[in-house]
Amino acid sequence: MSTLPDFSDADRLLPAVAQDVDTGQVRMLAYMNRAAWEQTLATGEATYFSRSRGKLWKKGEQSGHVQRVREIYVDCDGDTILLKVEQVGGAACHKGYQSCFFRQWDGKEFQSVGRRVFDPQQVYDSST
Amino acid sequence: MSTLPDFSDADRLLPAVAQDVDTGQVRMLAYMNRAAWEQTLATGEATYFSRSRGKLWKKGEQSGHVQRVREIYVDCDGDTILLKVEQVGGAACHKGYQSCFFRQWDGKEFQSVGRRVFDPQQVYDSST
Repeated sequence: MSTLPDFSDADRLLPAVAQDVDTGQVRMLAYMNRAAWEQTLATGEATYFSRSRGKLWKKGEQSGHVQRVREIYVDCDGDTILLKVEQVGGAACHKGYQSCFFRQWDGKEFQSVGRRVFDPQQVYDSST
Repeated sequence: MSTLPDFSDADRLLPAVAQDVDTGQVRMLAYMNRAAWEQTLATGEATYFSRSRGKLWKKGEQSGHVQRVREIYVDCDGDTILLKVEQVGGAACHKGYQSCFFRQWDGKEFQSVGRRVFDPQQVYDSST
């Protein structure tokens, strides 16, 4: 088994940056444990570990907006992952934006600058 | 004071992605605490918190390869920062590569694919 990324402890969480393979837009950052990493490799679709829910989370499992992984990189320290992905549905953010980084600093505060692709209320079942 | 990014605890470390403002290349990921964030805003050059050294670390303080911050974004959860930077010297990685993500997964293992811009032995004083 590869020693990269450094999942020396299976529960260790490493940040994974998802970048659009075509446009270079940084879509989101989430975390992987070893199981998420192995599932991502096995399926070719990004799986993360949800810190809030405490379990594996296949991106798009609810919205259908999966991330097809085209390229995978690891950084010099072996503790950060970079995925170049094709974002199905055009939006990575659960709030309906192309990118989770839809707020930009204007020198005093953050302003929303992102483009909304979908209405979250129409995508996520509010009863779950 | 802005509640974004979420430095509710001054010691909380948030990941910060540094992306080249011109090419879109993801250069590196490092961490900020509140002091690093405030110093970055005040100086316009990226300052992180070094987890290994346990102190603020102005990127390029030793190599001269500072990062001039052009744009700043925060994600939907307020717990990840994205910097669009101009990387002075052309290399973000202490190993001399343009990007810290110079190793790509080939399906079995990681292969070095990055371009080396400088020789670390000529930039860093090995006595320190």
